Amino acid sequence: MTVKQPERGFPDSEYQTRLGTAQRKMAAEGIDGLFLTTEPEFRYFSGFHSLFWQSPTRPWFLIVPEEGKPVAVIPGIGKVCMEKTWIDDIRTWSSPNPDDEGISILADTITELLGKSATIGLLEGPESHLRMPLADFARLKSNLPCVEFKDCNDLVRAQRVIKSEREIEKIRFAAQAASRAFSRTPDIIKRGISVRQMFQAFKHVLLDEGIDDVSYLVGGARNSGYNDIISQPTERLLEKGDVVILDTGSIWDGYFCDFDRNFSIGKPTDEVASAHHIIWDATEAAIEIAKPGTTCAELFYCMNKAMGGASGNVGRLGHGLGMQLTEHPSHAAFDQTVLQEGMVLTLEPGFDFAPGREMVHEENLVIRENGCELLSKRASRDIPVIEGF
Amino acid sequence: MTVKQPERGFPDSEYQTRLGTAQRKMAAEGIDGLFLTTEPEFRYFSGFHSLFWQSPTRPWFLIVPEEGKPVAVIPGIGKVCMEKTWIDDIRTWSSPNPDDEGISILADTITELLGKSATIGLLEGPESHLRMPLADFARLKSNLPCVEFKDCNDLVRAQRVIKSEREIEKIRFAAQAASRAFSRTPDIIKRGISVRQMFQAFKHVLLDEGIDDVSYLVGGARNSGYNDIISQPTERLLEKGDVVILDTGSIWDGYFCDFDRNFSIGKPTDEVASAHHIIWDATEAAIEIAKPGTTCAELFYCMNKAMGGASGNVGRLGHGLGMQLTEHPSHAAFDQTVLQEGMVLTLEPGFDFAPGREMVHEENLVIRENGCELLSKRASRDIPVIEGF
Repeated sequence: MTVKQPERGFPDSEYQTRLGTAQRKMAAEGIDGLFLTTEPEFRYFSGFHSLFWQSPTRPWFLIVPEEGKPVAVIPGIGKVCMEKTWIDDIRTWSSPNPDDEGISILADTITELLGKSATIGLLEGPESHLRMPLADFARLKSNLPCVEFKDCNDLVRAQRVIKSEREIEKIRFAAQAASRAFSRTPDIIKRGISVRQMFQAFKHVLLDEGIDDVSYLVGGARNSGYNDIISQPTERLLEKGDVVILDTGSIWDGYFCDFDRNFSIGKPTDEVASAHHIIWDATEAAIEIAKPGTTCAELFYCMNKAMGGASGNVGRLGHGLGMQLTEHPSHAAFDQTVLQEGMVLTLEPGFDFAPGREMVHEENLVIRENGCELLSKRASRDIPVIEGF
Repeated sequence: MTVKQPERGFPDSEYQTRLGTAQRKMAAEGIDGLFLTTEPEFRYFSGFHSLFWQSPTRPWFLIVPEEGKPVAVIPGIGKVCMEKTWIDDIRTWSSPNPDDEGISILADTITELLGKSATIGLLEGPESHLRMPLADFARLKSNLPCVEFKDCNDLVRAQRVIKSEREIEKIRFAAQAASRAFSRTPDIIKRGISVRQMFQAFKHVLLDEGIDDVSYLVGGARNSGYNDIISQPTERLLEKGDVVILDTGSIWDGYFCDFDRNFSIGKPTDEVASAHHIIWDATEAAIEIAKPGTTCAELFYCMNKAMGGASGNVGRLGHGLGMQLTEHPSHAAFDQTVLQEGMVLTLEPGFDFAPGREMVHEENLVIRENGCELLSKRASRDIPVIEGF
């Protein structure tokens, strides 16, 4: 499958649609405005796209009022970048300024836009956090004594979980680039290189294939099966008998893919070969039922059953995917989220096939009208074998 | 200067030293334990090093008691990785679990370690945030009605700002690798390539030179001078007359370098050539006085004076550097932090040399007994000229 590179960014109409959807829900819930401080939500409504969020020094504030466009209250350093977005009303302060890190101008803006006794939506629930100092948030609340803050986590999550075609295009492009990179792994898993060298070589390949940033690459290699895929790579040389996993969250135009591939260096043991069949079959079973109306809990039970009820310590068997490496929902027994068209999800079954030996597998897909469309190139049912060791 | 690759990680003795320093300060301030939720502080005291923090789903908690080692309260998925650190007491829950996302076990652990009416240090001040849902934090507080939370931002910042030799080695290694990569930029700034292609080529070069991850790469190119360095790179082809800036926060073993380099495609205008001299001279003047006893405000005034009092909208002229791209302190008029041995800093003078045309320059250094040691390879005073356009 050849995927043409999509256009970067979004037209203003996409932001207008996002805003309209949010404002309808805000009206229904009696919320006068959303107060957003975290990068994905800030970008979702404003289009502001910068790596500068990696600096923890400065907070960034976006107010989404019940009527009219969002208003940005941001450090002066972001003004020129923000002027390139669809946002018209940009208010800045010279930052850093620990005596008043934007709080006065923010409080004034909220009062002007929403009134002194507004109900303001704040992300307070699962998977959220407030990206500003707690002391400044306390100061803001004391500057706005009649404002009520109300959790808007469900409102924002329910909206963001449905991706537009333009969002899907970006994730597909990232997933296809990573798929091409994975197809080249037999060229980089070579005798005499370490786990770390394999990681570094794979980053080059991902960039070659059109990925913007290899934000997340984890994995490992261990004889007869790995037991940890989130640690840093080691200097240990790859060896015959190793089961290798590479798992990447690679980014294109601000959207992640997130999937992994397993490899066996030399002929796999029967246990390893069988474990790979089991997780592949679990994924296949979930793909079969991944369509509107199915719940995330049903996806979980379906995969869990295919693995003999032995799912591991990860807490879920897949999740949402988009501007973040992992997003709502979770394929877990607790999550009764009903699948809808436009949801982009990972399926990520994993289990311990022997004590201290796990096998994890992952694919990316989007829910369509009558089923799902795979965004990653489907893995082979047999674990790929790397020769030459 | 050839820099031998340092060892990765830290011996347990380094963590013991960090803990002892913190515990002495805690005792002096009447704090019974620190409650940490953010990656750098969590890693600083535990050694837990994983890219998995990019997933927002799960909170991670570290308690640093007034006596004894830190205790980790973490999602089950992190157990094996955590067991590789010096931490002995690791408590896990199956996560995600939105009904109880670690709050019960966390509250029990705090009560067991610190008592029901402890005073607990929490990061509340500048540049900090709480990395857990606000609703869960409210739940924690209601589970611990007699606990007092107290801001420990100054305590933790004052400790982290002084780097050990092992930390300095890592930053130096990153800065020297990036310096070698910058010296190769004439090979990648070529006729016919776009700003984005230049970025991607530079990422390959950084990885080649030994960088682990190119976490942060920003910059730009514009005829006669850029005006925005934090936006995404564009598809515009590089042209004769462009002033190019590349600014990278590249990581080695979890530590950042952070500096930039400017280039002129073809002969620079007199204005551009002069602007580069001015920021280079401003840096040089700051290097002269960067030693124990000087304040950050003095560094600011020194650079600001060398630029004719025209510093830009960035809000400061450099900052601390370490596990984060930017750390405390700030070279700004408000920051009276006194320089001490072991502080790793950037010097980052920038100003508008013409309306809408800025020039920014940056170097990395560590404060030593009688002065400072440059960690980046000093830029040339003349802006480097790229030929072939």
